[in-house]
Amino acid sequence: MLKSNWIRYTIVAGILLLFAVMLMLMRGGGKNAMVSGLPNEAMEIARSRELSPDDVYAALATYMPTGRPDEYLMFASGGHSGQLLVIGVPSMRLLKTVAVFTPEPWQGYGYGVMENPLQEKYPDSAYPPADTHHPALSETNGEYDGEFAFIGDKTNGRVAVVDLRDFETKQILSNPVINNNHGAAFVTPNTEYVVEVSQYGVPLGNKYVPIEKYKEEYRGLVTFWKFDRKKGRLIPDQSFSIELPPYWQDLADCGKLASDGWVFINSFNTELATGGMEKGNPPFEAGTAENDMDYMHLINWKKAEELISSGKFQKINNFRVISLKDASESGVLYFAPEPKSPHGVDICPCGEHIVVGGKLDPHVTIFGMSKIKQAIEAKDFEGKDVYGVPILKFDAAKVAQVEVGLGPLHTQFDDQGYAYTSLFLDSAVARWSMGDCKFKAPEGDWKMISKIQTHYNIGHLAAVEGDTVKPSGKMLVALNKWSMDRFTNVGPLLPQNLQLIDINNTGESMRLLYDMPLGVGEPHYAQIMKAERLKAFEVYPEIGWNAHTQTQVDPKFAGGKGTVVVKGNTVEIYTPLIRSHFDPEHIEVKKGQKVIWKLTNLERTRDTTHGLTVAGYRIGASIEPGETVTFEFVADKEGVYPFYCSEFCSALHLEMMGYLFVKP
Amino acid sequence: MLKSNWIRYTIVAGILLLFAVMLMLMRGGGKNAMVSGLPNEAMEIARSRELSPDDVYAALATYMPTGRPDEYLMFASGGHSGQLLVIGVPSMRLLKTVAVFTPEPWQGYGYGVMENPLQEKYPDSAYPPADTHHPALSETNGEYDGEFAFIGDKTNGRVAVVDLRDFETKQILSNPVINNNHGAAFVTPNTEYVVEVSQYGVPLGNKYVPIEKYKEEYRGLVTFWKFDRKKGRLIPDQSFSIELPPYWQDLADCGKLASDGWVFINSFNTELATGGMEKGNPPFEAGTAENDMDYMHLINWKKAEELISSGKFQKINNFRVISLKDASESGVLYFAPEPKSPHGVDICPCGEHIVVGGKLDPHVTIFGMSKIKQAIEAKDFEGKDVYGVPILKFDAAKVAQVEVGLGPLHTQFDDQGYAYTSLFLDSAVARWSMGDCKFKAPEGDWKMISKIQTHYNIGHLAAVEGDTVKPSGKMLVALNKWSMDRFTNVGPLLPQNLQLIDINNTGESMRLLYDMPLGVGEPHYAQIMKAERLKAFEVYPEIGWNAHTQTQVDPKFAGGKGTVVVKGNTVEIYTPLIRSHFDPEHIEVKKGQKVIWKLTNLERTRDTTHGLTVAGYRIGASIEPGETVTFEFVADKEGVYPFYCSEFCSALHLEMMGYLFVKP
Repeated sequence: MLKSNWIRYTIVAGILLLFAVMLMLMRGGGKNAMVSGLPNEAMEIARSRELSPDDVYAALATYMPTGRPDEYLMFASGGHSGQLLVIGVPSMRLLKTVAVFTPEPWQGYGYGVMENPLQEKYPDSAYPPADTHHPALSETNGEYDGEFAFIGDKTNGRVAVVDLRDFETKQILSNPVINNNHGAAFVTPNTEYVVEVSQYGVPLGNKYVPIEKYKEEYRGLVTFWKFDRKKGRLIPDQSFSIELPPYWQDLADCGKLASDGWVFINSFNTELATGGMEKGNPPFEAGTAENDMDYMHLINWKKAEELISSGKFQKINNFRVISLKDASESGVLYFAPEPKSPHGVDICPCGEHIVVGGKLDPHVTIFGMSKIKQAIEAKDFEGKDVYGVPILKFDAAKVAQVEVGLGPLHTQFDDQGYAYTSLFLDSAVARWSMGDCKFKAPEGDWKMISKIQTHYNIGHLAAVEGDTVKPSGKMLVALNKWSMDRFTNVGPLLPQNLQLIDINNTGESMRLLYDMPLGVGEPHYAQIMKAERLKAFEVYPEIGWNAHTQTQVDPKFAGGKGTVVVKGNTVEIYTPLIRSHFDPEHIEVKKGQKVIWKLTNLERTRDTTHGLTVAGYRIGASIEPGETVTFEFVADKEGVYPFYCSEFCSALHLEMMGYLFVKP
Repeated sequence: MLKSNWIRYTIVAGILLLFAVMLMLMRGGGKNAMVSGLPNEAMEIARSRELSPDDVYAALATYMPTGRPDEYLMFASGGHSGQLLVIGVPSMRLLKTVAVFTPEPWQGYGYGVMENPLQEKYPDSAYPPADTHHPALSETNGEYDGEFAFIGDKTNGRVAVVDLRDFETKQILSNPVINNNHGAAFVTPNTEYVVEVSQYGVPLGNKYVPIEKYKEEYRGLVTFWKFDRKKGRLIPDQSFSIELPPYWQDLADCGKLASDGWVFINSFNTELATGGMEKGNPPFEAGTAENDMDYMHLINWKKAEELISSGKFQKINNFRVISLKDASESGVLYFAPEPKSPHGVDICPCGEHIVVGGKLDPHVTIFGMSKIKQAIEAKDFEGKDVYGVPILKFDAAKVAQVEVGLGPLHTQFDDQGYAYTSLFLDSAVARWSMGDCKFKAPEGDWKMISKIQTHYNIGHLAAVEGDTVKPSGKMLVALNKWSMDRFTNVGPLLPQNLQLIDINNTGESMRLLYDMPLGVGEPHYAQIMKAERLKAFEVYPEIGWNAHTQTQVDPKFAGGKGTVVVKGNTVEIYTPLIRSHFDPEHIEVKKGQKVIWKLTNLERTRDTTHGLTVAGYRIGASIEPGETVTFEFVADKEGVYPFYCSEFCSALHLEMMGYLFVKP
């Protein structure tokens, strides 16, 4: 007993001693420690030594002991996996892949369950692939509220709505006017709108027009999808678009506080290049990069709402669109010059500063909302573009430029006055100080402070609540596109590398904490939210829950018994699910009959999910406690088809089965 | 300089001190430390404190610093995700989801690329869902050789082949005789065969027969798929099945060394229960659990090969099947009684012992191959079952029983003489000592040693190379079915929990190291291999590589230029891919024309993958360095469709695009 206590005190003391040493190192380590993220000798020792269970035990005792929940949740797009990823931070563990645009049988998504948007939209199972880019968490007063997530599909110009009560996709909408996007999704500060911005110029309304008419008939588009929070749906009839020139609109961010009511979009290809290298034209990569300045788009969406209210719109494919002419002449759309094929526009926590990453220019350029408003008021324009859009003078909108390094893309903010910009070509994150903002870094305004290497080719980055009005600081995740030599080689298609970076301390003290390989897609953008904001269901609130509508339906069970009702050529089956049997266990139909099969999980214990698969038929469901799902199919194949519970629900899980008999 | 060195030495000393303390704890910690996996005070301190970046930094410096590769790779089934998961051990990081039965756009799998088995098998995109259960790594002399992985789909009775040079699925086969499986896949010691065993009794050949004829006309099946290692394919013409009684065959394992030439299958439902609770029959969960003993199936596959060679088979759906009668009468099939609805049969490293988990019995039962052979020789039978299969006497086959706890399922082995059995109902792993085996535990033969709690409801477990002839010991992963309260709640469908357990030391010293949530499916079984065994490609060996056949094809580029060839109503396009443009950038076709589009990635740098998606069309590819892929589609929708590179390949990645013009 005495010995045992002594040992426990010793381990605690040992851990504390190690922290003290680390702390000393951190304060005194200087540049060398910063760049690699670890002092070189310690790194070499750690790398070269075979990792023993003792090492793992010692480390994980302080890091992630069993049962410790994560403080933050990262919502990352799955890139061209088409999904949304939910990752615990700081543990960097994948808590859930939310099926959005791609069928996912574990979640019973896209395999015949009638109550999901993929089935609704593509009843023939020919789901197009998606390239999810920017997830957006719903906001209230510019802070995440933990209720919904939205995400865009670049390939096909779609947006989707995910309900964070059950982490399931509730709606998928295709843009009726344009067939691609990039800057999607972003939300206004109270989630009035979900913003979707096109990438590549095309003829609006999906018609064929020769490329020679690019300037005249190809266009860009920004769409404001009205969100009904109570319904949990985007409402097309209350939404609208604004026609834009066929520059390549790129990323967007919604204004907040000082810039509330505005949306900002960076663009490139103001050259109006149309490619065609096979015809001797410059390829797009050259043709789009000639101009020294492109145009940041400033969009006054409150004024756009007024135009819509006053009927100043046309309809394309039955969707309301404000014309480029009306937008330019009514104060809805302005341009501000921005250097050179920029990629990324981000609004600071107080809403005053708009930060644009230069991509082909080593600076970030900071614009000021007060200056922009003054310049608009004073009509301080350098002229108009070829489409008649007023262009502010660069110096009339610009507040500062900070030279940060090669390939600056995206910027996030902390609670200590720093901004963090990803540097694609440098494979690094730059920390620099904001000026004239809510938070103040000790180094003063608009100063480059330090860089930390990432591995490799960083795209986006995400700090904790780093694009809200109240960033949390502490940690940042670099979303690196290449991992090269970081992990055990698992073939020519390599995982991405999400690196956790400590940004807790001021000055040159960023530290690389952890590499998270992710072999399930190419995460593009992410947002990190405090986990405590979530109000997720543990089980569905009532038995007979329709997860699609989030309402209770009548599960039609008399005394919890299964029933079969034959109506002409249709067989309706009502099956309650409880450990560990189906009721009925025998389903007998004639070949050619239509089957409507409704299954309800009667369980109230957390994690007691039942699944369903049926041999030979394209049927797959995940039915969480309380949930009701429906299948409709024609029994078109004669034979004996076992069905069973596909979630390991009890010791008698294998016995939870039945037969679908399809008689000749 | 001096100061900096001092700091570095101090941190190294600090780390070493902590290890020393941990070591002392480990040796003296006793029972209390074992059960929870961490000493309670340290655990409480760790859990209650907000995790600071310093904590993470300190822990990860020794655990998983950037750039440290994993020593082991775990290949886990994705359960009803339908995929195969590759996880680094000990870091428990998801390195890759290998798309097998489910389309996966990140890997360009199932979205129109002609060179993949999903497209080959289901050209209409109506892919059925799968429930992957047991991955099997290819073996040479009973050791993993790092070349191939095989995996079964329980729902539809399919098996798939994955080539570990590029971690891509090369073949999917449906069993021609039976429409479901469970014990699949398992390999013989030199991967002569991949074994697939059915689960639920059905009429063979997929015909309709009333359930009343269950005993007479429903059957089980074991299939031996011949594997051609050079081709990397299963060869149906060289494969065969053996008809089995309609007991529910369950899990299988292939004999090795002392038991080479045999396959072992546990079974339950020797009651021949047929369910139908809605008719007043006992539900399956009751009807299948009445007998105290079920039958382990002993299959002599070398003798079965002789029957096949001598023409003793029938053909069902053109597939060779040895009849139950011939199998019973020719020494191919024997039964040994096994207690009570067992789940799991596992062969020890020396091949002598067959361990069966009781599921509804608290024991594991150990059978001996020498005793079995003697009993067969001596015809020491207790009789025959109703189908004429000779049944060995229990005591003539049994070597020992060890009481391990409630719900014993599966067993793995280490290099110190211990076996590890998962206990579903206890939510624990039992360590017990083997007897009369290659390795000797200090506690002596057939003794229960200790248990460690898991969280919760463990199914399978996997030790490092724990089912080969040379297990490595050290670490074990518990594949828990429920996670309940372990992680931040992300809705009613919870992640699985894979727990890493230290088994490095003898006696009562198992320790819980780490919880890995996994929100991408329900991993069922896993195998863990030394990473050094792999010979994965870093890039494809030659430009113009067909990954499906693993051979070079003619990419048809004159001087690396794109070409377009119009042949009647078909447009053939040859596109080289290199950072950062397509050639051609304009693809012009008439509505209704057939397009054959061949794309080749000319890059030779690792990780320089290019992707392809096309707005409006169901097209998605991931084209790794050197690879050639082909799409064939009809341009049936008029309009202007941007296509672009969907992998972030360079700073000008967004500019790597083109247009598909479909003219009226």
